[in-house]
Amino acid sequence: MDRDFVARLRLIRTAGIGPVTYRQLLARFGSPEAAIEAIPDLARRGGGAAPKIADIPSVTREIEQVERMGARHLFTGRGLYPALLDAAEGAPAVLIVRGNLGLLEKRVVAMVGARNASAAAVRFARQLAAELGRVGIVVASGLARGIDTAAHNGSIESGTIGVVAGGIDIFYPPENEMLQREIGERGLLIAEQPPGTEPRARHFPYRNRIIAGLALGTVVVEAAPKSGSLISARYAADFGREVMAVPGSPLDPRAQGCNLLIREGATLIQSAADILEAIGPIGAGVVRQPMRPFGADVPPSDASDSERQAVSALLGPVAVPVDEIIRQSGLSAAVVQTVLLELELAGRLERQAGGRVSLV
Amino acid sequence: MDRDFVARLRLIRTAGIGPVTYRQLLARFGSPEAAIEAIPDLARRGGGAAPKIADIPSVTREIEQVERMGARHLFTGRGLYPALLDAAEGAPAVLIVRGNLGLLEKRVVAMVGARNASAAAVRFARQLAAELGRVGIVVASGLARGIDTAAHNGSIESGTIGVVAGGIDIFYPPENEMLQREIGERGLLIAEQPPGTEPRARHFPYRNRIIAGLALGTVVVEAAPKSGSLISARYAADFGREVMAVPGSPLDPRAQGCNLLIREGATLIQSAADILEAIGPIGAGVVRQPMRPFGADVPPSDASDSERQAVSALLGPVAVPVDEIIRQSGLSAAVVQTVLLELELAGRLERQAGGRVSLV
Repeated sequence: MDRDFVARLRLIRTAGIGPVTYRQLLARFGSPEAAIEAIPDLARRGGGAAPKIADIPSVTREIEQVERMGARHLFTGRGLYPALLDAAEGAPAVLIVRGNLGLLEKRVVAMVGARNASAAAVRFARQLAAELGRVGIVVASGLARGIDTAAHNGSIESGTIGVVAGGIDIFYPPENEMLQREIGERGLLIAEQPPGTEPRARHFPYRNRIIAGLALGTVVVEAAPKSGSLISARYAADFGREVMAVPGSPLDPRAQGCNLLIREGATLIQSAADILEAIGPIGAGVVRQPMRPFGADVPPSDASDSERQAVSALLGPVAVPVDEIIRQSGLSAAVVQTVLLELELAGRLERQAGGRVSLV
Repeated sequence: MDRDFVARLRLIRTAGIGPVTYRQLLARFGSPEAAIEAIPDLARRGGGAAPKIADIPSVTREIEQVERMGARHLFTGRGLYPALLDAAEGAPAVLIVRGNLGLLEKRVVAMVGARNASAAAVRFARQLAAELGRVGIVVASGLARGIDTAAHNGSIESGTIGVVAGGIDIFYPPENEMLQREIGERGLLIAEQPPGTEPRARHFPYRNRIIAGLALGTVVVEAAPKSGSLISARYAADFGREVMAVPGSPLDPRAQGCNLLIREGATLIQSAADILEAIGPIGAGVVRQPMRPFGADVPPSDASDSERQAVSALLGPVAVPVDEIIRQSGLSAAVVQTVLLELELAGRLERQAGGRVSLV
């Protein structure tokens, strides 16, 4: 088994190493094996015990299990990992995928919405997905009841991507087992969690982030205010992608989330043609550069003890943007990132959305 | 009877003298009587016969008739003529009004929509109008079936303005006779046409223009594409006012006009609070300056024969913007307006929307 492959997955499956840390470790040490060797020393400088790196047997088991399922791992920054997703902040360091990887080369539009959608909206979503398919667009969604299911059903012939919250082999909701199996054969099934993982509440926003990150834009069909679909829309906006919504009567509570999005600037969608207009012509698939926290891509360098102290003094239980720490400390981004990496590996720092960090 | 009053109405009721010409004549000659005296000479220089000025007995009859109805005339640029409307391009030179003129001092929002609106939309419009009334906003509409009627019904207690397409004493549609009478008592009823005028197809866009011109913004509730409500919305946009629309499902044909407006930039409205936010806080009732054709407000001066020739040479059966004529002729706006005025009074020139003119 490929040693580099195993080492990558060991890093990713280590508790306390998120996608940002994983990318920074690789940027600094060049290879996953070098990073694993360096971690104890980094954590010591951060003032804590080193995290227990995932062991080789467990990672080997996962790799064999995924292979037996006819699936495979895709690592950030390498090979077939979807480029659009890789450009999104906080994108998973690894994906487990099964099915037609060729779909990742086409233009992808995400379609999400209410689980308890009206019959009319379900039919509308299915037709919209089918129309998108006819013009060569792949539809991504989350395999939930309601709009998600309709989006997949409408695009199963032409190209559909289903992202699940748990493991690729866990069928949730149970009534979509057939659909999930079919997507794994004819479409593309994607999971962030290892096989066997039962989906928990915290996994669903992660799934929504992947769906939004895969796509040039996200269309919301029927969604109540404060629903998960609006989280997908916010991810799309954060990633600099198109946010689109299908309107409804103000008297229909299931339309209010969509209407709210449109009020806030989402493009009103009535047809596949409207979506095509919003995402732009074929070839012009240029994605607006998302806001990235200042310094997030800088490879870390070494830091002195006084620099460590200066950075630590600026941290507390309230999350602060990394760029704010760089500004206030007067240190280079590389040095600040190094200290943060050390603190994180020592279990003393937590990374949060929007490039913010806090002490644990 | 006030001679100035009679002379004003004689000018306005003269065939071929529209609101633009009326305003230019007054700007140039200072008084309506002086304008009437000057017209034969102006028309002769324009190369045609002078228009037959409306005679004193017919105008006197109109004035007496309007007084008997408890109504009155309001002239552009004078007294209680609504200032917002007066700022709108092509606003009528005279209005006939009956009812509570105090409503013109409050903030006005126009609400228009489909005659064949759904029961749900009718109810929504009535509630929306009532909510606006509760925060001191007067609702203007056009007394048509459906949404208009609902808007008036919802705001009859708090303040409603009804604009009719025909004479103030003509009840159209007939089933709204009671409502029209009630608005003339408790609200404010407005007509552009003289009493006794049966509404014709061409009067309805005029009415829509008045409704949009009276208001800080126009809300469209349920409207099909290409409907009259969209004409009102276009007037509002032309006048630099807020355009607002209530969305609906793409599956509902009656919502598609509204959805189209929102796609084109209208503010999506779900509640009275949304309208308040769009038109801005009390006191900040600043209306964006509408685009006015260059030179439209310049008082005309005298023109020489060679100048007359230069302007005429630029005119033809295809309508041209006045500012284009000013630019291409190299003449002053005042001189160009004078020549156009002469041509118009000679019956050889027609003024069209957007400050454009063509030879008849």
